Amino acid sequence: MGIVGLGNVGGGTLTILAENSEEIARKLGFRLQVAAVCSRTAKEKQLPAGIAPALITTDWREVVAHPEVDVVAELVGGTGVAKEVVEGAIAAGKSVVTANKELIALEGVNIWRQAQAKGVTLAMEASVCGGIPIHAVLREGIAGDRIETVFGILNGTSNYILTEIEQNGTAFDAVLAEAQRLGYAEADPTADIGGFDARSKLALLASLAFGVRLTPAEIYTEGIQRVSPTDFAYARQLGCTIKLLCAARRVEGGLFVSVRPALLPVSTIMASVHGAYNAVWCRGAFGADTFYYGRGAGPTPTGVAVVSDLMRVAREIRPEPAHRVPPFAHTELPDASPLPIGDQKRPWYLRFRITDRPGIIRDLSSILAGHGISIDAVLQLPDQDKHNLPFVITLENSLESSVRSAVEKMAALEFMVEPPLAMPIERGV
Amino acid sequence: MGIVGLGNVGGGTLTILAENSEEIARKLGFRLQVAAVCSRTAKEKQLPAGIAPALITTDWREVVAHPEVDVVAELVGGTGVAKEVVEGAIAAGKSVVTANKELIALEGVNIWRQAQAKGVTLAMEASVCGGIPIHAVLREGIAGDRIETVFGILNGTSNYILTEIEQNGTAFDAVLAEAQRLGYAEADPTADIGGFDARSKLALLASLAFGVRLTPAEIYTEGIQRVSPTDFAYARQLGCTIKLLCAARRVEGGLFVSVRPALLPVSTIMASVHGAYNAVWCRGAFGADTFYYGRGAGPTPTGVAVVSDLMRVAREIRPEPAHRVPPFAHTELPDASPLPIGDQKRPWYLRFRITDRPGIIRDLSSILAGHGISIDAVLQLPDQDKHNLPFVITLENSLESSVRSAVEKMAALEFMVEPPLAMPIERGV
Repeated sequence: MGIVGLGNVGGGTLTILAENSEEIARKLGFRLQVAAVCSRTAKEKQLPAGIAPALITTDWREVVAHPEVDVVAELVGGTGVAKEVVEGAIAAGKSVVTANKELIALEGVNIWRQAQAKGVTLAMEASVCGGIPIHAVLREGIAGDRIETVFGILNGTSNYILTEIEQNGTAFDAVLAEAQRLGYAEADPTADIGGFDARSKLALLASLAFGVRLTPAEIYTEGIQRVSPTDFAYARQLGCTIKLLCAARRVEGGLFVSVRPALLPVSTIMASVHGAYNAVWCRGAFGADTFYYGRGAGPTPTGVAVVSDLMRVAREIRPEPAHRVPPFAHTELPDASPLPIGDQKRPWYLRFRITDRPGIIRDLSSILAGHGISIDAVLQLPDQDKHNLPFVITLENSLESSVRSAVEKMAALEFMVEPPLAMPIERGV
Repeated sequence: MGIVGLGNVGGGTLTILAENSEEIARKLGFRLQVAAVCSRTAKEKQLPAGIAPALITTDWREVVAHPEVDVVAELVGGTGVAKEVVEGAIAAGKSVVTANKELIALEGVNIWRQAQAKGVTLAMEASVCGGIPIHAVLREGIAGDRIETVFGILNGTSNYILTEIEQNGTAFDAVLAEAQRLGYAEADPTADIGGFDARSKLALLASLAFGVRLTPAEIYTEGIQRVSPTDFAYARQLGCTIKLLCAARRVEGGLFVSVRPALLPVSTIMASVHGAYNAVWCRGAFGADTFYYGRGAGPTPTGVAVVSDLMRVAREIRPEPAHRVPPFAHTELPDASPLPIGDQKRPWYLRFRITDRPGIIRDLSSILAGHGISIDAVLQLPDQDKHNLPFVITLENSLESSVRSAVEKMAALEFMVEPPLAMPIERGV
């Protein structure tokens, strides 16, 4: 295969191809080979260890023409050279993988017609919601459904700004200035805060979901510039938060499509999408609600989408059915016994029910100390029955086998009404 | 194609094939034909309108042997007859779609080897998390990544019970009895509340994610029977909720795999999975965090997975590249202009900034009434500046064009410090 463009996404793609090559080969049953690379500034020393293409060039035509290249990844972006690369590759009978939102939103259907005429594949998982495999989901995973509504949070910058306004009560202009200073927002932030980037993505997402051709300019679009801390205060009174919501709904006679700030109940799963994350929520006529969440952009999250597409195309262009995607994702599945669960370290929650008397904490803490376990906190709810008193000890990160052994010892103490209940605490899910 | 088994999932599958046939044909570019159906009690009158197979039988062998059947959907369940159907179909050179969690968790790899040897496809999206296309995601969508951790809420019944204990403070036994009365829990609930159903699903999910073969019996498993309202009260003090968490983590030297109740911070997206919904959270080495959510079961959500698999296999067994999955999911994309956004009805949030004086609400409400718009509530935060006073009016479901026209009229009132900010309120995302 050949890679054209070594910016953020191209760099992330090569990183994954280099560092994840064993896993990729184990999934495919064969190795992916980068035969040619093109970049305006390509130098071999810039490539990660393990990537040594036969050809490094500044002319994309050489990549497309290379006899060992059967798939071209267009990672240039924009609608100029990128379009020439994509159309040139298809004309040469090569399949194309692209991460190019602008080009696909504007010209996707035309490009696909060219690919279809040449019998090659056009793969574009990375072109919408880089880190969320929404394309695989809509194209195959829930293809049997009929989508009625798609909601999305599709622009990480504006979602980051709204999250900051909400969490710190800072005014829009100050948050934007800080985001620009940190590099989260562009010097000219119009595309992000005005909703225009989200609009391109929604046009593409609605095309995928509803099977229609929508141009971004036709979509009703409003930005987040006027949303203030005051609005979050009122929204909170209404049990809501505020998000830049991309919405497309099928109704009798057509589609309603819009990008604009909207109030969402805090109890919805969409309301818990914070910061630079993106999310897509679908309601299908048959499959009910599904929801997808991940990084909207970033070199390696988008690189995962590019590499996954390269793997799919690499399998498709091999004629043998043995190279079809194995249902277990990997071509080999060695037997594996899980590790002993006792070897795992976690913070723990221990809940006791006791008959109260002096010295309880002393007895319990001395057992824990004897097992090398540190107490994090002791909690007791008010107004409990002294003869069946529930209270909780939380533990710092501790070896599970030690916790279990301590719990067993504590269960035998004469003041226990029932054996302690021990549960791990999982942070950062 | 042929369908074996007309229980819940078989029924849901036929419903979708009948009621969604136009959309399916538009996506595929050809029609799916049900040539044969087998059920212990099959009668033609039970089939939905539009499904008229040439053969209706009580003998699955006739379905497998039918010359117009090239894909067999095994929707029987269990590991008895179902195994004969799947192996019989593969032996006859037919591809197989299955929704059978038990069979795949126990025998999946062996069955896949048989399919591979015969050059046919084994598709099993419906076998794990019926309503979530997690199989397409792991097999293709994020295939380029290396999964480090998978967390799941994989059993709807136990999640429903925990949600009820948390929200109503009812004790476990009472919630279980009520769930049984409502048909949400089985008469013998051991598989659900003891974690054994979740364990089978986790074995399969971990096989998909990590490319290893795990047997359910090797997985450390604890049920939710001892989780009480008291535990939720303490968890809340710790900023957490409690979920039956399925976890598989790759560490140096192997995998930690467990099913058991655990505390999760309420700020995590996993904590907002309530009731009968399922969810899977993945952390990849390159793609960071992704999250997938949907119905765990149910005739039509699981039916969507079966039909999507049937569509995938139907495309695969056609040799022409034109039948490859079109990147836009549909083979035809008519141009579509969105409907005028003003025709949409929503509840609305209007935020004003005014110079306070008597008669403000009268003036605003008379404009709204003049546009046929009903006020839902008027909100005002305490201690605001009288000369730049923010307050909010929420509107009942209203036509957007009327709202916009009213807002334009209100913007011209002399007491307005700035034009009103109008945002729709989206319920039930």
